[in-house]
Amino acid sequence: MANDALIARRERLLGPNVPTFYARPVHITRGRGASLWDADGTRYLDAYNNVAHCGHGHPRIVAAICEQAARLNTHTRYLHEGILDYAEALLARIGWPGQLLMTCTGSEANDVALRMAQAVTGKRGFIATDNTYHGNTTAVAHLSTRRPPIGGWPEHIRRVPAPDSLTPLGGSRAVQPEAFAANIARAIDELERSGHGFAGFMLCPIFANEGMPGVAPGFLDPSVEVIRRAGGLILCDEVQPGFGRVGAHFWGHEWLGFQPDVITMGKPMGNGHPVAGLVAKPEVMAAFREAFGYFNTFGGNPVSVAAAMEVLRVIEEEGLQANAAEVGAYLLGALRQIDHPLIVETRGLGLFLGIELAREGEPAGEEAGRIVEAMRERHVLMGRVGRAQHILKIRPPMVFSRADADELVGKLAECFAEIAP
Amino acid sequence: MANDALIARRERLLGPNVPTFYARPVHITRGRGASLWDADGTRYLDAYNNVAHCGHGHPRIVAAICEQAARLNTHTRYLHEGILDYAEALLARIGWPGQLLMTCTGSEANDVALRMAQAVTGKRGFIATDNTYHGNTTAVAHLSTRRPPIGGWPEHIRRVPAPDSLTPLGGSRAVQPEAFAANIARAIDELERSGHGFAGFMLCPIFANEGMPGVAPGFLDPSVEVIRRAGGLILCDEVQPGFGRVGAHFWGHEWLGFQPDVITMGKPMGNGHPVAGLVAKPEVMAAFREAFGYFNTFGGNPVSVAAAMEVLRVIEEEGLQANAAEVGAYLLGALRQIDHPLIVETRGLGLFLGIELAREGEPAGEEAGRIVEAMRERHVLMGRVGRAQHILKIRPPMVFSRADADELVGKLAECFAEIAP
Repeated sequence: MANDALIARRERLLGPNVPTFYARPVHITRGRGASLWDADGTRYLDAYNNVAHCGHGHPRIVAAICEQAARLNTHTRYLHEGILDYAEALLARIGWPGQLLMTCTGSEANDVALRMAQAVTGKRGFIATDNTYHGNTTAVAHLSTRRPPIGGWPEHIRRVPAPDSLTPLGGSRAVQPEAFAANIARAIDELERSGHGFAGFMLCPIFANEGMPGVAPGFLDPSVEVIRRAGGLILCDEVQPGFGRVGAHFWGHEWLGFQPDVITMGKPMGNGHPVAGLVAKPEVMAAFREAFGYFNTFGGNPVSVAAAMEVLRVIEEEGLQANAAEVGAYLLGALRQIDHPLIVETRGLGLFLGIELAREGEPAGEEAGRIVEAMRERHVLMGRVGRAQHILKIRPPMVFSRADADELVGKLAECFAEIAP
Repeated sequence: MANDALIARRERLLGPNVPTFYARPVHITRGRGASLWDADGTRYLDAYNNVAHCGHGHPRIVAAICEQAARLNTHTRYLHEGILDYAEALLARIGWPGQLLMTCTGSEANDVALRMAQAVTGKRGFIATDNTYHGNTTAVAHLSTRRPPIGGWPEHIRRVPAPDSLTPLGGSRAVQPEAFAANIARAIDELERSGHGFAGFMLCPIFANEGMPGVAPGFLDPSVEVIRRAGGLILCDEVQPGFGRVGAHFWGHEWLGFQPDVITMGKPMGNGHPVAGLVAKPEVMAAFREAFGYFNTFGGNPVSVAAAMEVLRVIEEEGLQANAAEVGAYLLGALRQIDHPLIVETRGLGLFLGIELAREGEPAGEEAGRIVEAMRERHVLMGRVGRAQHILKIRPPMVFSRADADELVGKLAECFAEIAP
């Protein structure tokens, strides 16, 4: 009842269709580690929120924000050592010489990344997969197929079919990498013939929004060759996989095995503080800085930088990447013990796991939705993803423990037991 | 020398052409109220930074951020009272029923505002002035003339000459409102004939980036009539004038005297914390929410909201709007005592003041630059603006005192005395 009143108040003040999770939205008021509490004091296990990368309310990160906010919060038109110290620390985590540009959101970072490719190539056209999401600015939303822009889809964007685990491109997982590359080659050709030209390809290196379709390292190699040959840039959206989430590597592209021209990052970067950014090859950064007079008022301010710096330190000192690898492997093994005819594949990279549901070869989105709701009623927060929203998504804070994994798996097994095979 | 090392390090880590202020950039390390200190402990009077609206390092706002960051920082897909309490407090400051959407930057807010107008009208085209700046996303940067986009200027954007104080549209300030509206009517006609159609007009109600060209309340009335008749929306960018800056009013559009369809806000909203947003008429919000599936991960998070809420409280309880009116009037009077042949007009609204410099009727941008640099050497931070960067810009934190005003005016008089008439 209290939530009904909140929902009504929300609609009055914020308008209709403001998205919430769950048929019965949750009213969260407090968080710590991988736990969230609602207004009634009920604890929820958080198996969804990647923004609170180091855990909700991490005291060291909170302290870093407080200390710097009390001292100074200004912008990059004055000199400040904070952003330089952070750039050094971050760039040390990348295996090639790069330069940093800071924004406030991953959407802003991807919006800049597109212009970087345009600045380098002098061309306008982009390619992305047909089931992706790279953010909410006008330019970046054009990459997404979710809703058509007013006036129709822009002609300088082409989409290629996303890799898929249920129905792989080309008919099998073995030929999928070449089939994906062939579609990119065709799209490049169309862009060049249309006069827009090909500026770059933007992707998430683990295809997170496409449902983590079980591609293997080396998957992108044929595409990289096609893109390089055409002179386009590879814009790698690390908003979801970055900062150790995939366990074995610090970045998703290291796992997939390719070198991007631009890396964009966001959500986990400040553990919830609005900070995001890009790392680009120096020649790419120089071209962008020459072509566009870019300044971001809040981007790279000393407080945001302090939050981001402490996140890097906490990841390192608390061994969160190793925890993602170890607990992720343990969780994957335990999830694979859940036996249900709907489950066609349980897969994962570190602490980013998916359980794909299908019935007679068709995506079982409805059933996935019922599982997510049933888990919410058992006070475990998770989500779903994929072209038919048929893949359960488990992407908890990186402090997720074996005990958390046990709780998740035990309750998930109960939920599956309630679903007719 | 220390700064030279910082500048070199900056270029190595961030790339070339990252904008700084001043021939000799300032290395700021600490702030309080309207004062900033550099690494050597030298105090600067801040007569520039509107982001630190309530003063640098305001202890109440810092405490609000710390307290909420320790408790919970998550997103709007869960219910939270913070954003609703803030919406109520903010909407109470607006004289018509509106609804709130929160983002992280003013650029994001303006990017959304454009899509709101598109959603309502089903058309794509926009009009802005030829010397404006509304932000840094791809879509919003298209409104600016500063650098051409790759592939050329988009055809769905038309620019109208900005009002000007040195050479008013139509030949005199008296006819300038009608001349401005006539140009808008012509641009609307072009957009409709081009097939793009007219979705809306975006403006800053004090024409801040155009150099605050001394327009009077009622200036926009003929334009409003033209825009309304064509079915377009008025998108009002309050990033600079909003939150009491203009003294006599809380919003710039209240001063100019018109009712926008969408109000966007940013910089001062969180006193430096990255928070921004829009208020739209309910029918506009509904059309946007229906046409676009918009979600902003960090937008409206409980910490950003806590910062914004405390800013509203501080403005109220410390009487900052009244201070802007009173100190602004005092400062304007004192600035008008400075007598120099270069000064053609000294004008201001609350704590947003400009001194326009010209030599024989031509904008004196070079001299304005010398004044700004000379003030920096006297440890007063200010800027310049206008089509030829010929208008000195004074836009301090809202806690600026009479003593601060005296210091500013005294030093400015010295700087003018050094400049040949």
